Amino acid sequence: MLTHTRRAVHRVSKKSGMAPGSLVHIGETYLETPILDVHRYTRETAEHTILAGTDEIPAILERDANDIVWLNITGLSDAKTIREIGRHLHIHPLSLEDIMNTSQRPKVEQYPDQLLVILKMVDVGKDGLPTYEQISLIIGDGYALSFQERPGDVFDPIRTRILQGTGIIRKMNSDYLAYTLIDSVIDRYYAVLEQLYEKIEAIEERIDTDYSQNLFVQINALRKEIIFLRKSIWPMREATSSILRDDVRHLDESVIPYYRDIYDHVIQVMDQIETCREIISAVSDSYMSSLSNNMNGVMKILTLISTIFIPLSFVAGLYGMNFVNMPELQLAWGYFAILGVMAAIGMGMLIFFKRKGWF
Amino acid sequence: MLTHTRRAVHRVSKKSGMAPGSLVHIGETYLETPILDVHRYTRETAEHTILAGTDEIPAILERDANDIVWLNITGLSDAKTIREIGRHLHIHPLSLEDIMNTSQRPKVEQYPDQLLVILKMVDVGKDGLPTYEQISLIIGDGYALSFQERPGDVFDPIRTRILQGTGIIRKMNSDYLAYTLIDSVIDRYYAVLEQLYEKIEAIEERIDTDYSQNLFVQINALRKEIIFLRKSIWPMREATSSILRDDVRHLDESVIPYYRDIYDHVIQVMDQIETCREIISAVSDSYMSSLSNNMNGVMKILTLISTIFIPLSFVAGLYGMNFVNMPELQLAWGYFAILGVMAAIGMGMLIFFKRKGWF
Amino acid sequence: MLTHTRRAVHRVSKKSGMAPGSLVHIGETYLETPILDVHRYTRETAEHTILAGTDEIPAILERDANDIVWLNITGLSDAKTIREIGRHLHIHPLSLEDIMNTSQRPKVEQYPDQLLVILKMVDVGKDGLPTYEQISLIIGDGYALSFQERPGDVFDPIRTRILQGTGIIRKMNSDYLAYTLIDSVIDRYYAVLEQLYEKIEAIEERIDTDYSQNLFVQINALRKEIIFLRKSIWPMREATSSILRDDVRHLDESVIPYYRDIYDHVIQVMDQIETCREIISAVSDSYMSSLSNNMNGVMKILTLISTIFIPLSFVAGLYGMNFVNMPELQLAWGYFAILGVMAAIGMGMLIFFKRKGWF
Amino acid sequence: MLTHTRRAVHRVSKKSGMAPGSLVHIGETYLETPILDVHRYTRETAEHTILAGTDEIPAILERDANDIVWLNITGLSDAKTIREIGRHLHIHPLSLEDIMNTSQRPKVEQYPDQLLVILKMVDVGKDGLPTYEQISLIIGDGYALSFQERPGDVFDPIRTRILQGTGIIRKMNSDYLAYTLIDSVIDRYYAVLEQLYEKIEAIEERIDTDYSQNLFVQINALRKEIIFLRKSIWPMREATSSILRDDVRHLDESVIPYYRDIYDHVIQVMDQIETCREIISAVSDSYMSSLSNNMNGVMKILTLISTIFIPLSFVAGLYGMNFVNMPELQLAWGYFAILGVMAAIGMGMLIFFKRKGWF
Amino acid sequence: MLTHTRRAVHRVSKKSGMAPGSLVHIGETYLETPILDVHRYTRETAEHTILAGTDEIPAILERDANDIVWLNITGLSDAKTIREIGRHLHIHPLSLEDIMNTSQRPKVEQYPDQLLVILKMVDVGKDGLPTYEQISLIIGDGYALSFQERPGDVFDPIRTRILQGTGIIRKMNSDYLAYTLIDSVIDRYYAVLEQLYEKIEAIEERIDTDYSQNLFVQINALRKEIIFLRKSIWPMREATSSILRDDVRHLDESVIPYYRDIYDHVIQVMDQIETCREIISAVSDSYMSSLSNNMNGVMKILTLISTIFIPLSFVAGLYGMNFVNMPELQLAWGYFAILGVMAAIGMGMLIFFKRKGWF
Repeated sequence: MLTHTRRAVHRVSKKSGMAPGSLVHIGETYLETPILDVHRYTRETAEHTILAGTDEIPAILERDANDIVWLNITGLSDAKTIREIGRHLHIHPLSLEDIMNTSQRPKVEQYPDQLLVILKMVDVGKDGLPTYEQISLIIGDGYALSFQERPGDVFDPIRTRILQGTGIIRKMNSDYLAYTLIDSVIDRYYAVLEQLYEKIEAIEERIDTDYSQNLFVQINALRKEIIFLRKSIWPMREATSSILRDDVRHLDESVIPYYRDIYDHVIQVMDQIETCREIISAVSDSYMSSLSNNMNGVMKILTLISTIFIPLSFVAGLYGMNFVNMPELQLAWGYFAILGVMAAIGMGMLIFFKRKGWF
Repeated sequence: MLTHTRRAVHRVSKKSGMAPGSLVHIGETYLETPILDVHRYTRETAEHTILAGTDEIPAILERDANDIVWLNITGLSDAKTIREIGRHLHIHPLSLEDIMNTSQRPKVEQYPDQLLVILKMVDVGKDGLPTYEQISLIIGDGYALSFQERPGDVFDPIRTRILQGTGIIRKMNSDYLAYTLIDSVIDRYYAVLEQLYEKIEAIEERIDTDYSQNLFVQINALRKEIIFLRKSIWPMREATSSILRDDVRHLDESVIPYYRDIYDHVIQVMDQIETCREIISAVSDSYMSSLSNNMNGVMKILTLISTIFIPLSFVAGLYGMNFVNMPELQLAWGYFAILGVMAAIGMGMLIFFKRKGWF
Repeated sequence: MLTHTRRAVHRVSKKSGMAPGSLVHIGETYLETPILDVHRYTRETAEHTILAGTDEIPAILERDANDIVWLNITGLSDAKTIREIGRHLHIHPLSLEDIMNTSQRPKVEQYPDQLLVILKMVDVGKDGLPTYEQISLIIGDGYALSFQERPGDVFDPIRTRILQGTGIIRKMNSDYLAYTLIDSVIDRYYAVLEQLYEKIEAIEERIDTDYSQNLFVQINALRKEIIFLRKSIWPMREATSSILRDDVRHLDESVIPYYRDIYDHVIQVMDQIETCREIISAVSDSYMSSLSNNMNGVMKILTLISTIFIPLSFVAGLYGMNFVNMPELQLAWGYFAILGVMAAIGMGMLIFFKRKGWF
Repeated sequence: MLTHTRRAVHRVSKKSGMAPGSLVHIGETYLETPILDVHRYTRETAEHTILAGTDEIPAILERDANDIVWLNITGLSDAKTIREIGRHLHIHPLSLEDIMNTSQRPKVEQYPDQLLVILKMVDVGKDGLPTYEQISLIIGDGYALSFQERPGDVFDPIRTRILQGTGIIRKMNSDYLAYTLIDSVIDRYYAVLEQLYEKIEAIEERIDTDYSQNLFVQINALRKEIIFLRKSIWPMREATSSILRDDVRHLDESVIPYYRDIYDHVIQVMDQIETCREIISAVSDSYMSSLSNNMNGVMKILTLISTIFIPLSFVAGLYGMNFVNMPELQLAWGYFAILGVMAAIGMGMLIFFKRKGWF
Repeated sequence: MLTHTRRAVHRVSKKSGMAPGSLVHIGETYLETPILDVHRYTRETAEHTILAGTDEIPAILERDANDIVWLNITGLSDAKTIREIGRHLHIHPLSLEDIMNTSQRPKVEQYPDQLLVILKMVDVGKDGLPTYEQISLIIGDGYALSFQERPGDVFDPIRTRILQGTGIIRKMNSDYLAYTLIDSVIDRYYAVLEQLYEKIEAIEERIDTDYSQNLFVQINALRKEIIFLRKSIWPMREATSSILRDDVRHLDESVIPYYRDIYDHVIQVMDQIETCREIISAVSDSYMSSLSNNMNGVMKILTLISTIFIPLSFVAGLYGMNFVNMPELQLAWGYFAILGVMAAIGMGMLIFFKRKGWF
């Protein structure tokens, strides 16, 4: 993740000096040629076509007043395609720049006749780590554009609903379409959160028995994961609340409760992330304490052993002295007596330490 | 609690991809068939009936202008029933979705002719841990709906007041009824707080004598309990203040002081939770210090013992050497002299350490 | 303090289920029968009477337009008396409930013709710990009521000023009277703060010499004291600022600077408490460091002693071996030579450790 | 500083019970009789006189419309003089009370025809510690009053500019004069900040070599210094911003940029103080780590020495046993062999520990 | 950096007492004589000239309505030049003072017909540490001034775009020019951030293997770097948002999206810095834990060795005693038996410790 971030920063820094609005793709290249597919529907009909190129866009847009068009672009690395789309749909150059810069933080930007929404689609990767993909939406009157970095997304149920006409989606306009897109992106956070909770629980079960450095590494990795997860959703709060607060020309009265619902979900996800943060922090404290307790216990036992044998060694050393006149040495039962004394000293110390609760 | 939260997140995550407003119950199933019971009262009369099904609702609502109807639904797992209730009372689909999702955070949502209030009813469970149950209220003109997850609640005194006509409840409209419902939910937090204080006190009494890892586990469990308790009341602050601040059509002038009172109670509960947090944190610090002090004391004593005997052992070792010419060894009183010297060294060290305050 | 808080929470929790506005005394009972005393004054005259019962209140209130009446009620446990007073003076039931609940947090509540102010009167108890008493004020046109839990307060100088006519108090109306009451309560915080500073200084003087667990207990007790002190004044900030900010009908233009003065004092007290908090936290850190430094010093010395004698013991042990052919042992000066070697080793180590600055 | 604060709190607490507006000097008494000196200037002329008493004030104020009068009062202990000045200039009693209470926190108070500004003048004392002196300004139309505790201030350059007519000061009115006074007080903070930075640097240079408790004491003293410094400037932010924000009758349009400049300087000083705080905190962490590293290093070396010699001692002890049949003892080269073995063991352990990087 | 800051504070503190608006250069002197160069362009043409002195400025400003003039001043130490420029362009004296004070914090100041923007240009110095240079912009109608401390900046691509007419820069007015200047300064932060990320990664790779104090020093140096970096960009947030929020006369409708873009970039840079801060803090915690784990591991091994040999030494010491009657000593196989016993004890302890997981 860190390396990824560094590389993104690197690319942004390489761009400095270019004219504002320069279209440079910042991010990994997953697709050389972008795929453009269109969903076009009315209350009665719906169709799905894959475009051959950007030239077909004007034809797509010449539609009846009731048609809703959803143009989905997969792959952001081809600046020419993005520029062409921007030209056909009159998108502000700075918006295009933001769309192509996948290190952009989530935001909502309002233009006179369009709304730009940039968000991060999370998913659980094959390695169990969350993956991030930038989703940009341009919402206009009767159309919605979605830009994504690579094939594979969370929009399939929406496609099905459009094509089969289930739910109210075909009865609503493009604002509602945009809402369902945003909502399905936000909902995906729960999958990552679930996995986070599972990892935390797995760690919690081990903190009292596993004292390896490894566990601490895992706790710290989790912490960093939460930092990045939080960073990817946090700006959405301000952004969605700004849609609701500001006078957004594009939003129909009837979809306002739906956008309020998104805001609500964002707050809930952030709430869960905060809870994760507090719990992982408590877990980390517990682990530290458990670790230090264990270490202290070990040192105490080891020191106890030494403490018991050092005085006994002294006694043995005493009778190892070579003085000519040491009356005890001459006694027939001296050796056995001293063994008894030693046993007594040892046992005494053991009992004393036990009583004190030192082991 | 954590497992519980994870499971809730799991269910929410499973729901992703469904159309917005899909009615899916998220939470434990306590009752297969919901119980619907109605309190219907005027200034003069009050009656309590249990409905056979949702079909009876329209008849219930065809009432005199002065009637107040309180419909209480227990059990949220049956989507059909909830949908029917929603249809009869014109509840927004998103509200119904929120009511069925028991991992919903507390909130207040305003619709043109209804107010949705979602809160968490806490109680002390059999295992001494707080239990949480989601209570959703729909407040309309002349009626109030309450949805709860399982039988058993804090509303019995209100039922008695309605049926016996004590207090002013029968003289007021449904806003006041809703206030009493909310108020009794909030008041229940004090029982949990009381138990929290008891646990903190029990821990405080033990921190100077109990050095087991167990106590630390308890402190951390308490901390986590406070995190969840705080999470369940925190959003109520914003929510209740929004009732007071915004222009809520449903609230009568005369009930405003009562809703201000709720706000006040929420603030007080949060205040108490914050105090608990600060105290548990202080207790934790005290315990850590006490633990480390105890450990240090033990190690110091053990090390002291070794430190006294190691030099003495050296002296004994000295006279255990086998040099042919060691004049002291030949002295008749040599052994006794050296015993004296050793005793002197030992006592000297003891006195020195004592004076230094090392034990 | 903690026990006290728990008991208060306990009483509040026991009250849950009662109808709102139920008058139940929450707190310690200091007086079975409340004492009611009245100060009644004009610019020219002032008199002080003790009422026999609540029946005399209406007579007291039938006064000339210029009379100011201050009714002071001591003892809150008798619900009947409080209810009677409420009835005579048209106090809102929720206000009465707040007045009787001594675990109420400080607040200001505005009613159309009255202002309710609840605050905490602190004092230094006999045991050196701060004591808290709830003072509630009802300020109306031409009268002010003060409710206190037990005899003894900070109002005596005000009584003297009223009866002797010193200062401007007799020239002003009831708002000014209320201001002097609030002001004298807030000013009392300085006495507690002074004592806090004294305790902190006493601790500061000891942190470099006293390494007992006891000092840490004291630091933590002080911390908890500050938590409770802060809790008792913190809400006053919001409350007093709301008097100034909101359109309060009861406040005369001429007394506004005086209420601004109260706000100022509250801010100052909180400022001082925050400073105390920061200092006690710094003191605690210093103490921890001093403690750990001392412990480390002790362990270093002890370990040094062992470290010097263990190699020497080895040398002694070497010449205690019983090999038949150990040429050194046969040398007449062998013993003395080895003693010299040992002294050299010991001195060498001492010098080395000294140079390294290890003791 | 702490003792100083405690004493101030003590004096304030002693004042409680007095009538509001009572003029009691709270602070050290530096001058028994206040010194009153007047600067009176127009665009063309300027003169400086020292007044014999407060009786001369009315004469001073009977001036031409273009005259600006700056009355500077040094010494606040004489309540009579302050009261007289207040009477002549119609200053609100609470303002006078604030001026005489030198534990007042910085603030700006607006009266219909006057502005009260209270700030703290810092300086570096002889002992290297910052000293604080309260400066109070009353700014009215055509005049400015400044109250200070003791002789010696930062206003000399302003006096010179007035008398010599340099700069624009003689062309501007009393608002500008007040601005220069406030500005020179704020600028003085840089001197204290510089000294703070010097101290921090001095400490930073020592943290890797000086492991005495003394350094920690210094770090903590610096921290406390920063707490008090911050406390003395922090309220100025709110205060100066309130001058700019509120509709202050006394401020001429042309001086607004100058007051904005003051605000800017206050922000900068606070910024620097915050930076100091963060750096001293980082330094403290570094020191702690350095200290603990050093301690650990020492203990590791000491323990290493013991660990090497204890097994060797065992070997020696082995051949010190008195069994009749110990074949090795009889070997002529046994002793030398065992010396070799011991050397091998010792060297082996040394090499092993070295490889592990333990010393 | 610290020394640098201290020196800057020193210079500011030396300035105290001077009349407001005094032009004193605060900062390092890089150039004795300032270099003044002018870019003058219209839609069609562009030219670049270096001025001989400030006398040429009026001529430069007598231009056609469509001309845009960018005057860049390098070197701030010559007060006379700055004053002359200020006089020709009617810059407020306080603005000039701010421009010459290079310890000024970033800000935006609005004057009736000019906008003053002060920011910090960062770069990566030769020693790998970030360097800071103050850039001040005066933006007026048709002209923009930029002041910099020393030759070398990030504006070369802008110069090229102006002279070659690429991009839209020649079509826009001076607001857009100012935007490109500000934007290129902000973009430069990414280079420093990239380097920060690289350093953090380099440290992260070493924390599990490098236990030297040196690494901790590096972590702390990085922390301090982040403190200063944050300090240099933080005020830009407030400043740029104030350009957007306030009614700024100088900004054309068409450039508003561009300034919103700057705001966005500032937020992103701060976001990255915050992430760096959180990560460096997590890295520091990891390192601390790794260090303490390593130390504990070492001590445990060392103590284990002692703990095994001390009881064995005792046994050896036992049979080194010189009692006349010690039957075991006489046994022919006694020595070998005892060697076996010792081996058994040693192995037993090893196995016990291993099983306990102590090494």
